[in-house]
Amino acid sequence: MELHGKHVIANTSTASGSQMFKAVDPAEGQEIEPAFTKVTEAEIDRAMQAAKEAFESYRRRTGEDRAVFLEAIANRIMDLGDDLIKRGQRETALPEGRLVAERGRTVNQLRLFATVAREGSWVNARIDIADPQRKPLAKPDTRLMLIPLGPVVVFSASNFPLAFSVAGGDTASALAAGNPVVVKAHWAHPGVSELVARAVQQAAEQTGMPDGVFSMLQGRGHEIGAALAKHPATTAIGFTGSLRGGRALFDVAAARPVPIPVYAEMGSINPVFVLTGALQQRSDKIAEGLVGSVTMGVGQFCTNPGLVIGQAGSALDALIDKASQLIEQALPGSMLYQGLSQAYEEGITRLSESDSVDIVARTLQGADGAKTQGAPHVLRTNAASFLNDSQLAQEVFGPSTMFVVADHRQEMEQVARSLEGQLTATLHGTDEDLADYGDLVAILENRVGRIVYNGFPTGVEVCSSMNHGGPYPATTDVHFTSVGSDAILRFARPICYQGFPQASLPPQLRDRNELNIWRMVNESFTQQDY
Amino acid sequence: MELHGKHVIANTSTASGSQMFKAVDPAEGQEIEPAFTKVTEAEIDRAMQAAKEAFESYRRRTGEDRAVFLEAIANRIMDLGDDLIKRGQRETALPEGRLVAERGRTVNQLRLFATVAREGSWVNARIDIADPQRKPLAKPDTRLMLIPLGPVVVFSASNFPLAFSVAGGDTASALAAGNPVVVKAHWAHPGVSELVARAVQQAAEQTGMPDGVFSMLQGRGHEIGAALAKHPATTAIGFTGSLRGGRALFDVAAARPVPIPVYAEMGSINPVFVLTGALQQRSDKIAEGLVGSVTMGVGQFCTNPGLVIGQAGSALDALIDKASQLIEQALPGSMLYQGLSQAYEEGITRLSESDSVDIVARTLQGADGAKTQGAPHVLRTNAASFLNDSQLAQEVFGPSTMFVVADHRQEMEQVARSLEGQLTATLHGTDEDLADYGDLVAILENRVGRIVYNGFPTGVEVCSSMNHGGPYPATTDVHFTSVGSDAILRFARPICYQGFPQASLPPQLRDRNELNIWRMVNESFTQQDY
Repeated sequence: MELHGKHVIANTSTASGSQMFKAVDPAEGQEIEPAFTKVTEAEIDRAMQAAKEAFESYRRRTGEDRAVFLEAIANRIMDLGDDLIKRGQRETALPEGRLVAERGRTVNQLRLFATVAREGSWVNARIDIADPQRKPLAKPDTRLMLIPLGPVVVFSASNFPLAFSVAGGDTASALAAGNPVVVKAHWAHPGVSELVARAVQQAAEQTGMPDGVFSMLQGRGHEIGAALAKHPATTAIGFTGSLRGGRALFDVAAARPVPIPVYAEMGSINPVFVLTGALQQRSDKIAEGLVGSVTMGVGQFCTNPGLVIGQAGSALDALIDKASQLIEQALPGSMLYQGLSQAYEEGITRLSESDSVDIVARTLQGADGAKTQGAPHVLRTNAASFLNDSQLAQEVFGPSTMFVVADHRQEMEQVARSLEGQLTATLHGTDEDLADYGDLVAILENRVGRIVYNGFPTGVEVCSSMNHGGPYPATTDVHFTSVGSDAILRFARPICYQGFPQASLPPQLRDRNELNIWRMVNESFTQQDY
Repeated sequence: MELHGKHVIANTSTASGSQMFKAVDPAEGQEIEPAFTKVTEAEIDRAMQAAKEAFESYRRRTGEDRAVFLEAIANRIMDLGDDLIKRGQRETALPEGRLVAERGRTVNQLRLFATVAREGSWVNARIDIADPQRKPLAKPDTRLMLIPLGPVVVFSASNFPLAFSVAGGDTASALAAGNPVVVKAHWAHPGVSELVARAVQQAAEQTGMPDGVFSMLQGRGHEIGAALAKHPATTAIGFTGSLRGGRALFDVAAARPVPIPVYAEMGSINPVFVLTGALQQRSDKIAEGLVGSVTMGVGQFCTNPGLVIGQAGSALDALIDKASQLIEQALPGSMLYQGLSQAYEEGITRLSESDSVDIVARTLQGADGAKTQGAPHVLRTNAASFLNDSQLAQEVFGPSTMFVVADHRQEMEQVARSLEGQLTATLHGTDEDLADYGDLVAILENRVGRIVYNGFPTGVEVCSSMNHGGPYPATTDVHFTSVGSDAILRFARPICYQGFPQASLPPQLRDRNELNIWRMVNESFTQQDY
């Protein structure tokens, strides 16, 4: 399929700008054809206006209609076949298997949100029947449900060119809730973005969706993000990326005359605590799992475990030794783009320049800068030094992890207490350890969105009990997850209908439960009619 | 009961500051004894640190424990008896009946949140069982629930000295969720605040709660709010008051190194649309209900209907005439404090100075400035003028309403479309009208938190299907209500436990549902064990 290098704005391929850019193949260090056009301010305005116009009709489509649309997107993405995977490999240097798996995850997410939209219980319907006899005042009939917010702007992530990009989780959940979406594609994979955007465009056309329901804009530059965040038609923002980028959007959104919510998922160092019993029983196995998790995808995951905390002793030394051997054997890999591999290298250099940090292992094979490679590393420090220098707790995005050796349990707890908000924390232990380290668990509960026991934080399950979120700076809104079916809640809000006649109520709130959704009626959950 | 004029900080009555202030009886224009001490920065820090310390133990108390605490607060407030009502009358000029009713609402809210905490389903527990056989990857066991955020700062409202103040809805819902609360009392009713704070203090002591679970600080000045909003231990803010005050807190909270959520409910003009059929059938009855709603509590409600929109014609004229007659007969009433009655008067003057606005009626009895009185008014303009001058859409807090006369239905829709976010909109119509004006309803849905049909927006029902919230500037967070059981959700956030053994899970997430709460297990709601 020939790439046109343009934006998709309200069902039209268009590009009026004069600034061009090309993708770069990180594994070759070469630009890839064709050139893409950077979006203009007028085009941003056009996409947002079209989204605003589309909102009125799109929000009133049934859950079934939205489900059909989402499923069509999934199907059209699959129809792209090898073209998508091949372009993805060139733009991201991610291996074919990973991209095929990520495509699977992406279409599964679209189908999950199709199911959520079709099933319909996500609107959280509540019905409290009137009681005209109540004293001193009659009780009115009140009924509540969630409705969509309006046009949502989604900023694509670099590290998931499919699953957190043009038709990724943010887009799928926003569309499922009834919101038009304007995607700002990531500049590092414009070709993949165009292919997926054209799949969405096709799906929208085939399923009769209003034109402005989806737009995709190409380009690079902070001013694009700021213009989208400031646009009066924007009602919410989804973002996956760096702390700096997410915070900048949050600040712009908070300073608007009408502030809007920003759901920025900004990564994390994902501490792993290895408890005494587990260290004794299975340090080799933990080392294998750890190194697998650290090096997977060249460490380019928000849930990459960047910190491992354990109590000093021969068992911990054995774990560090085993992890070091494995890291030495691990291969360097091409990272997503030059800026990322440079930042990774600088991060390792910065840490290693600290007197209290040692590089205890690195891959034996040299990393090739021309191939944008990142080299796996294991570092080591002690808890006292870690507690003294907040620089050591900064995320280094890439295939490295740092052991923090504590003298005693209280020091492990101090390290936990010193941490900023995290997406995850992990504990390795025996069940006795876990009961024994209750205080540590309690400290972590207040700092993280998910606690993993005897597993690894990478590989985020997509289900309704998942929380991919957490206290700042893991995200800008601790109330919501960006993975799993509840991600839809970011893009909806409650409305109460008081005293409405049946015929004028939305179907979700009528006495007869024709959609067969779960509702809370007079304080009990039921799928029955009232 | 003798007032001590101090703060309550972590179970101690204390005051180290040197700046003093007194309450003023608005009906007499006289200061009331005793003097109260303005809080110092050191005291703010002490209260927040105590709250932070208390959080660790308070958050682990059972729902039953918290329920007992909340019920004890309700009982201790009732024990204050007439002292509370009498001091309230002097500080607010609200009539005895109103204060007795508001006390009833306040203790009912406390008991409602006791029920919510005891029943326990509010934690929204989700369980997705592991599937080790799943291909290509085993599915982990993931379980999710809501946990409290941490210390919550509550800013009391002037217009509800009990129900939205020291032990009002924000405090009750934050405590129910497991968060310590630091209340900044409203300077206009420090005596009522002290009485209620002492009731809370007693209840905390009697039920064995940790000392820092509750503090109440006295004083006036923006710097107090800013210091509380900036304090590192503060994790969320509840506020009911003016747009200026709420936005100032929001801005401070958003600019923190670690931003925190602000739930500011900032009022609204609450438009009422009178549709054709209703105008023909019962304009007198609507006028009576409207004037009752406008003048209730001297118009000092966030849900006071400040705008009435209808189509030009004799039926609308009849409605305006009837409302005018009733307003002429209505009595002026003492408002909560001098600044409020002045702002009301200035608001009326500002509107009446506009060429396009007429005062069509005012109470025949003069308002007495020495008694801080506000005079009921009816104003009138036309839709074209309203659409041309955004000043006319500014809230005038007090007992007035403005009719906006539209030439035709499209103009009514334009007026609706021009409105900022609102807590409520109201429609008066026949069921045929309502079906007929579907476009108007759709426009309002996108602008309000609650739509009332053939009722009035004042009198906010406390139940799980209520939404007292809405798009900015009605609130700073469109996702949440500040009235009703869901208000608890503002002060809690999800956490996911992955792969945890039964014994280390919170009881809400164990296979055996010993608390008998509603849970979603493998995607279905149930109260069964797994």
